[in-house]
Parts: sequence; structure tokens; C-alpha cells
Amino acid sequence: MLDIQITKTTSPKAKPADESKLGFGKIFTDHMFVMDYAPDKGWHDARIVPYQPFPLDPACVIFHYAQEIFEGLKAYRTADNTIQLFRPDCNGQRMQDSADRMCIPKIPVEDFVQAVKTLVEVDKDWVPHSDGASLYIRPFVFATDVGMGVHASRNYTFCVICAPSGAYYAEGIDPVRIYVEDEYIRAAPGLTGFTKCGGNYAASIKAGEMAEQQGFAQVLWLDGVEKKYVEEVGSMNIMFKIDGKIYTAPCTGTVLPGVTRRSIIELLKDWGYEVCEEHVAIADIMKAGHDGKLEEVFGTGTAAVVSPVKELDWKGDKVFISGGKIGELTQKLYDTLTGIQWGKLPDTKGWIVPVCKG
Amino acid sequence: MLDIQITKTTSPKAKPADESKLGFGKIFTDHMFVMDYAPDKGWHDARIVPYQPFPLDPACVIFHYAQEIFEGLKAYRTADNTIQLFRPDCNGQRMQDSADRMCIPKIPVEDFVQAVKTLVEVDKDWVPHSDGASLYIRPFVFATDVGMGVHASRNYTFCVICAPSGAYYAEGIDPVRIYVEDEYIRAAPGLTGFTKCGGNYAASIKAGEMAEQQGFAQVLWLDGVEKKYVEEVGSMNIMFKIDGKIYTAPCTGTVLPGVTRRSIIELLKDWGYEVCEEHVAIADIMKAGHDGKLEEVFGTGTAAVVSPVKELDWKGDKVFISGGKIGELTQKLYDTLTGIQWGKLPDTKGWIVPVCKG
Repeated sequence: MLDIQITKTTSPKAKPADESKLGFGKIFTDHMFVMDYAPDKGWHDARIVPYQPFPLDPACVIFHYAQEIFEGLKAYRTADNTIQLFRPDCNGQRMQDSADRMCIPKIPVEDFVQAVKTLVEVDKDWVPHSDGASLYIRPFVFATDVGMGVHASRNYTFCVICAPSGAYYAEGIDPVRIYVEDEYIRAAPGLTGFTKCGGNYAASIKAGEMAEQQGFAQVLWLDGVEKKYVEEVGSMNIMFKIDGKIYTAPCTGTVLPGVTRRSIIELLKDWGYEVCEEHVAIADIMKAGHDGKLEEVFGTGTAAVVSPVKELDWKGDKVFISGGKIGELTQKLYDTLTGIQWGKLPDTKGWIVPVCKG
Repeated sequence: MLDIQITKTTSPKAKPADESKLGFGKIFTDHMFVMDYAPDKGWHDARIVPYQPFPLDPACVIFHYAQEIFEGLKAYRTADNTIQLFRPDCNGQRMQDSADRMCIPKIPVEDFVQAVKTLVEVDKDWVPHSDGASLYIRPFVFATDVGMGVHASRNYTFCVICAPSGAYYAEGIDPVRIYVEDEYIRAAPGLTGFTKCGGNYAASIKAGEMAEQQGFAQVLWLDGVEKKYVEEVGSMNIMFKIDGKIYTAPCTGTVLPGVTRRSIIELLKDWGYEVCEEHVAIADIMKAGHDGKLEEVFGTGTAAVVSPVKELDWKGDKVFISGGKIGELTQKLYDTLTGIQWGKLPDTKGWIVPVCKG
């Protein structure tokens, strides 16, 4: 149990007047959680302080060797004005897995959850009220040693910030066009694909920008060895409904073990679907599309929950999915998960962690 | 030509009293070069200011998505007290290549070199005087946008800092034991191996720490697809002298195009050696070792110039090289390159860029 010292701001910011203009991760709340790590003290000095910059020495490791990891989750306001989280322990556990790969000292899952809950309660008035809007929460850890040697830092800072964010689908769910990337890759066995480390995201920017310039919303990443098997879409997991079964890449080191991904798999299995976590070749996906068996395709992630795909382009070959509309199962998954998250449906899975009354 | 505004410190730091205790990249000079990028202004506001922290918003891209690149080079003090650089244009060109892959706006090579030269001249009294010691120069660019969206930042900062650093081989050149890494990888085709981006280095830390715990100085990285071909050692390029010929991995996207690497290749060719830039299987290296044909092995990089290898361990198989001593050719390369860098040998290649009198 952390002993969290709370120092509230004396100059609170104005809350956003129009929640329809929030966007994603653009404005931040009044406070942040901070905790430091030193070899002789472990994680220490847990505190909530006014949101403020970190003064960083230009020789700080973070500028040079990117020893950093992060997480992403949301706080939701229910109709009866409860503020609640969705499976924050899963994020805490995944941050431990990221930490292990990146040689960063682990934060106990219960401390991670306590930090998030305490900060959300302090800034509870920032949790949006409008339909589909939520408080996006960004926990992150970064190395703070000063010096040019390439090795694990001795000192770190753990920080949590929050951004009130608008509904992902403010104008209704809009299926997207996806470019199957066959030059750049996102991950390879023995690298860091299963972590949320900064380097994964930096490396992914170029392909995303190039796809966007050609009118695609995202890229679909293929495996890094053979460029044959589907792995992720943009920064989401991806699922394919083919002939009644659901296919998605297995979490064997190159794919991020998404919290939305595993929740959707649990729901699908509850509903009697066969879920195949296996390597599926893009050629087989395209063939299923041409044969009329590719029934639904959707990305899964915290920000969008599900992101339906209407078109895949691979080396000039195109398949179109669900007639450009969101598929029936994709819609049901979206309604169920968002229903649980916003308290409109009962939490039969034990996924909800209440924080406080809003 | 940059118009660089210079603001000198009013409280200069004490210079290190004992140059034998400098170490590498641990203390920094009185000033730094800074220049900012904005979409409407391009690179602008070039300035030299007292060395100082950057106050960074916790939502700055750098903490989360590691959109950052760097370079590394040195300034040398000659016997006649000239301060000089070694091929800084090569670093400027490589930083452009890194920038292109990481969607960072490029800095003209001549501006890069001017920034480095001007800063070194301002801090010329920090360039060490003792044998083998030098001023390590670290140019770096980092994204400065604030926000959680995963895309190329719009704004950036370019900074150059300098660290007086001790002789790499203060107690004589000491050949090292190398662990051939067969689980983790450093790069794969379609990723960022050819760049100096932070993510490459963060991903490499774990294997390095594990090898160190087992008494090895560094890991030898194999290719990311088959884990069969040799690529780099630690954060250096690597070369093998087998039966009179020199082998090193080609720069085809996964290997860093080292400035020391290319300089050594030029020298070797001048001296009549056959240099094979090709994929060499670790199995063939080990076989050559057992057959007595593996004559010399050495890493190449800015910090060490050359780092001779005395032992390779691959899955329990060991080969020993040059009887544990530095090889004759490795020594000649070291003497020649350091001779040119410190002005003890004539610069017949046009590699030296003088900065000022010290």
C-alpha cells in the first residue's frame, strides 16, 4: 500500500467548455501522480502534485536511449455518476512485462492500480459527462540517469497523467481502409513487440504516415520474418471473422497482448464462437475475401474499443468487407464492451473497478 | 549558414582536475547548442546557451513514443594545440538518414557541422590535454509535441552537448570476451537498425546486461530473420580477419553504417586487403576459429576506435582468437586511425576538419 502525499493545485485550470471538441489526449487534468526509483530506496516518494513539467538534463538517458514504457486505460462516468475503471490490473501486469524486457524495475500491480485510482479520484471532476467520452489515463516510466553509457539506468520516474477525451466515434462508427504494409515491420521475434515501449511506436510512424498520404486510415503489420502472417493494425490488435470463426495473431512475443483483445476473446468464447489464436497468412485472408468468406474484420484497442475495417489493400489486390458497414458481430462486441465500461450492462465478468462517486 | 546567437555562462563550472578519472560521457561542458523546428519556421533560433535542463511537459512525445535520434563524434587536441574533428560530415549525413526513417525533419549537413564546430570552439578549454582523452560530442534531435496521438511530431529540438572523456584504453588495449546472442535481436529488415534512434538502444540493454552478468563484455548480434549471420557487437560494427581477408556485415538496413567502419574499410583497401562486405554465418566464423583461420576479430566504433575480441561463445561452443592478444592488423588500424585523429600522422585522406587553436 503506497503512502501517497497529495498536494493540490492552487490554480486549477478551466474545464473544457465543449466536450464534443475534446479530441484524444490533447488536454490534461490539474494533477499528476509521480513516484521515483533509486537503487537504494526502491520505488519511493509516491505523490500527487499539480500537473507540471519535468526539468530534464540534456544528458538524461530518455533523450538518447529511450528506456521508457507506458500504459493506456480509461475512467468512465456511469449514468448514476460512479467513476470506474476497466481491468486496470491487466494494465499493471502488462507494464510489469514491459518493464522486465526493458530492464526497468517493476511496480507492484496493486501499487499501479492504487496510483491510478487515487489520481482519478483527485481529478474526478475532469471525467467527461457526455456519451462516449471518458478520461484517458496514461501511466509511464522513464529512465532518469544522466550520462552517455549504454546500459540500464539506475534511476527512474513513474508518472500518471490524465486527458479528458471525446467519444472515439463522435459521428458514428466509420469503417476504415487499411494498407497491408509489406516493406516496414513493427516487430520481430527477439525484439520488443509485446511491450509498450516508446521505440515500438517511433519505428511505426513512417509506415503510418505513408499509408495516410494514400488515403488509408492505418497499416496492417505483417510478421517481421517472412512478411507473410498478419499481426496488428496500426497500434491495435486485429481480428478476422472467416466462415463463422474468429482468427487473431497469437501473443508469442511480437504482438501486444491487448486488454481489449483478451476481453473480446473471452466474450466471443462465452457466446460460443471458436477463437483461433494462430498465425494466419495475409494470402489466406485475401483469398477468403475474394471467396466471400471474410465476413468481418476489426481492430481492437482501448481508444476505439473496436475499429471495423471495410477494405484491405495488399500489393494492389483489394478486398472489401461487410459492404463497407460495421459487421453484426463487431457491433455486438462494441455494444457489449462499451455497455460494461459505462455501466449500462451488468459487469458479469468482474472487469469493473469502481473508483468513487463522481 | 546558421546565424548562431551565443550566450556565455556567467558561472563556469570547474574543469575536471584529474583527466585520468574522466570516464566516458559523465560530465558535461559549460554550454550547449540548441535549435528548434516548427512547421511554419523550419529549423530556427540557432543558439549556444549555458548547459541547462529542458523543462518538458509530461505529455511530451519524447516520454511516450521515443521519436528521437542522435549522433556521436569526438574533438581531438593535437600536439601543436589544434582542436580538430574527424569526418563530422559523415555524422551529419547519417543523422539525415536516421531523420528520414524516423519522420524527423532533416538538418542540412553544413548546419550540423557548423553547430558542432561553433560549440566546440566556445568550449575549447574543455577538450582534454592528456593522451587518448578527447571531447565526446553528442548531437541529438527529439520530438517536442505535447499529446497522446501516435503520429509524427510537428515540433522538434536539436541539441548538441559535449563531454570531456578519458582514454578508452587507459590501461592498455584489453581484448574482450563476446557472447553470441541467440535469443534477442537488435534489428530486422524493415525496422530501424541502420539508424541511431533511441529505441534501438533501449531494446539492446537486456541482452547486454545478461551477457555482462556472465562475464562477457558485449553480445554479438545475429540477424533478426534467421539468427544465422553476424551483424554487430554491442553498439559497434564487427570485423573478422579470416585467412587474410576481412569480412564484415553489409549496410543493407539492419547494420549501423559506422563512420569508423567505413574509415577502416578505406584504410584496409588502401593497404591491399580484400574487404568482403557480406553476410557471414556465425557457424562459418566458429569453424574458421576451430580450423585456425580466424586470425583477428575486432569491433569498430567512435568510442573505442577498435575493440579486439579474444573469445566468442556461441551456444556453449568457444573459439579463442590471437592468443588473447590484440592482432597485428587490429593494432595497425588503431595506431593509424588514432594517429590521424590526434594529428600524429598526416591526414592523407582529407578526414580532418580543424576547428580552432586550443
